[in-house]
Amino acid sequence: MAGNTGVTAPAGFSAAGIAAGLKKSGKKDLALVVNTGPEAIAAGVFTRNKVHSAAVTVSRAAVADRETGVRAVIINSGNANACTGAQGFADAQAMQAQTAHALHLPPAAVAVCSTGLIGEPLDMGTVVAGIESIVPQLDTTTKSGEDAATGILTTDTCMKQAVYHGAGWTIGAMAKGVGMMAPSLATMLAVITTDAQVDAALLHDALAGVSNTTFNTVDIDGTTSTNDSVIAMANGASGTQPSAEEFTAALHAVCADLAQQLQGDAEGVTKVVDITVTGAATDEQALEAARAVGRDNLFKCAMFGSDPNWGRVLAAVGMAPVDMDPGNIAVWFNGHQVCAHTTGVPGAREADLSGAHIAVTIDLGAGGSGHATVHTTDLSFNYVEINSAYAT
Amino acid sequence: MAGNTGVTAPAGFSAAGIAAGLKKSGKKDLALVVNTGPEAIAAGVFTRNKVHSAAVTVSRAAVADRETGVRAVIINSGNANACTGAQGFADAQAMQAQTAHALHLPPAAVAVCSTGLIGEPLDMGTVVAGIESIVPQLDTTTKSGEDAATGILTTDTCMKQAVYHGAGWTIGAMAKGVGMMAPSLATMLAVITTDAQVDAALLHDALAGVSNTTFNTVDIDGTTSTNDSVIAMANGASGTQPSAEEFTAALHAVCADLAQQLQGDAEGVTKVVDITVTGAATDEQALEAARAVGRDNLFKCAMFGSDPNWGRVLAAVGMAPVDMDPGNIAVWFNGHQVCAHTTGVPGAREADLSGAHIAVTIDLGAGGSGHATVHTTDLSFNYVEINSAYAT
Repeated sequence: MAGNTGVTAPAGFSAAGIAAGLKKSGKKDLALVVNTGPEAIAAGVFTRNKVHSAAVTVSRAAVADRETGVRAVIINSGNANACTGAQGFADAQAMQAQTAHALHLPPAAVAVCSTGLIGEPLDMGTVVAGIESIVPQLDTTTKSGEDAATGILTTDTCMKQAVYHGAGWTIGAMAKGVGMMAPSLATMLAVITTDAQVDAALLHDALAGVSNTTFNTVDIDGTTSTNDSVIAMANGASGTQPSAEEFTAALHAVCADLAQQLQGDAEGVTKVVDITVTGAATDEQALEAARAVGRDNLFKCAMFGSDPNWGRVLAAVGMAPVDMDPGNIAVWFNGHQVCAHTTGVPGAREADLSGAHIAVTIDLGAGGSGHATVHTTDLSFNYVEINSAYAT
Repeated sequence: MAGNTGVTAPAGFSAAGIAAGLKKSGKKDLALVVNTGPEAIAAGVFTRNKVHSAAVTVSRAAVADRETGVRAVIINSGNANACTGAQGFADAQAMQAQTAHALHLPPAAVAVCSTGLIGEPLDMGTVVAGIESIVPQLDTTTKSGEDAATGILTTDTCMKQAVYHGAGWTIGAMAKGVGMMAPSLATMLAVITTDAQVDAALLHDALAGVSNTTFNTVDIDGTTSTNDSVIAMANGASGTQPSAEEFTAALHAVCADLAQQLQGDAEGVTKVVDITVTGAATDEQALEAARAVGRDNLFKCAMFGSDPNWGRVLAAVGMAPVDMDPGNIAVWFNGHQVCAHTTGVPGAREADLSGAHIAVTIDLGAGGSGHATVHTTDLSFNYVEINSAYAT
């Protein structure tokens, strides 16, 4: 199992990834992850966008049905099956039913994810043929996990996997896209597998909590996708039951690893930018303030230009609807203070931001101990390029 | 007075604009508008950013002092005098006092505006010498108004003026920047002059109301500046008192004209994009939904690429915290329907967005009559270019 860092790393999970023909490029565009048991515990977190894919509706229901559990996740890339009306919903259900049929499972045991262009009908002939082709490819090898991790990519430049090895149990995972609740392109998807013995309540609570502090703090451009889905499956195959604390910490490590990979592969990224806010009244206010800076285009362009224009930070954070002392805000770039008491520190304009990673720390001076970090990127020519002709 | 479309168009106003030396480029960087009476009625609307320029503090107080009124507005470009601490406040007061002294006015009768880089101390030697030089240049000519309108510019590519001629009375105006409450660069500034006989309450109410539907609907990137200020002065020199309705309509025409000029000259603009939302529960919800689309980078990049990717509109509007029917949203590009019942209309991908103006209409299907329009632009390479190296 050495070197297996993906969804097939835990015992009792198989996977496959193929080129079904949905992508014109001929790249892999269909992935399947199967839980061979014994248990079929599942949890999921999904987009909060009111306009969402039929796949999200289907998967939400599958995860909510704790009696049946989830035994498989079928994922296509190249088409989001969002804004496709009643036909789109029927297609998502057909993907679920077809996969269930091929795996001899009840339909409710299959979750469905789609990612790609919004508003195009899914080519169901290709999808159905793909499902027939992918099932025989299922395997527990490292390569099978990598094939699946490749099959879910869209504009990602590399696959994202993560693994955690406990004492006798393992968590494996794969992801694509950028930023749960705030993805760069159409979708952030993740599938997490574990052979630990955990119950549904623990898996749900751990996933919800961990997502808030990992995927939900990756915020590339504030856009929430129609398809965001994180699905975790636990089968108890290891026969080992970690404590809730141990499992949650492990899940956090895996999701934080994936989140960092998503941030680093965001569209057009030339710099990853971590924004930490301290001195806030509450952690929630700190997060709100950090998001306001992370989403500010003027700030993001300045980062692209390695321009230590700390005034952009002040102008952005001043818009956040949170408590602050407008005369007592402090800012650090890469640990060097550039602003104190809301005014520039001598030498602030000479701060060196030429590296590929920029850490910005902002103290709101509100006297509280609230703090939070948001993970974003710069705004580059390439971001504009990629997103100026996505559909055409 | 034919051809005078600026602040000196109404009777009893003089202006001047000079190169004081604050801008390294040698371009004009100081402007003065003076109300020679008889009355000194004033009103103002200012940024809501908690972090704001000392000039905003000084001007707010000047406008609030209705007994003294406002007789002059002194404006420098090239330096925002924001995030400059106690020294910045002393400098803004000194600008006010120096201008008042030169014009033989009480300091409280002078409003101060600054625009440019945040966080740099103002070169007060240059400012003071500039004030001494500019006062003798004051004149009521068309050219004087144009000199003032030029002296307030930063990254603007052209001056913005507007005029309205009533029966025996006139409103004139100048502006710079983009988008009150949501400017592209550091600041949106406007000075409005009128020789109509209006009282302070009418001027204030009209300005506040009109700003909401004009400057406040220009939203280029959601960024609210530290220095945004709109200051109106009325001197009654025409001896004519228009009705409140007539005056408000005229003020609306002038501000809408300026707002359109600001939108058309936004940083890096290649297309102006007007987003209208209908079918909302209330006008406020319609505005919120239109802003969500207008601020969405993925949508804005698609507009830059003339890409009729209507899925971006759906994904963006679905995030807005307003009432909608997620299955019954409709979208039109330039009057051609591309989406009905949240699904694509045949031929939607062929919509022609190659022109310099794009009108997007979105019906939320919420069954209400709420509607609003937000004026934005595309997100271009040049926007990134301009903002990636502003301070350096």
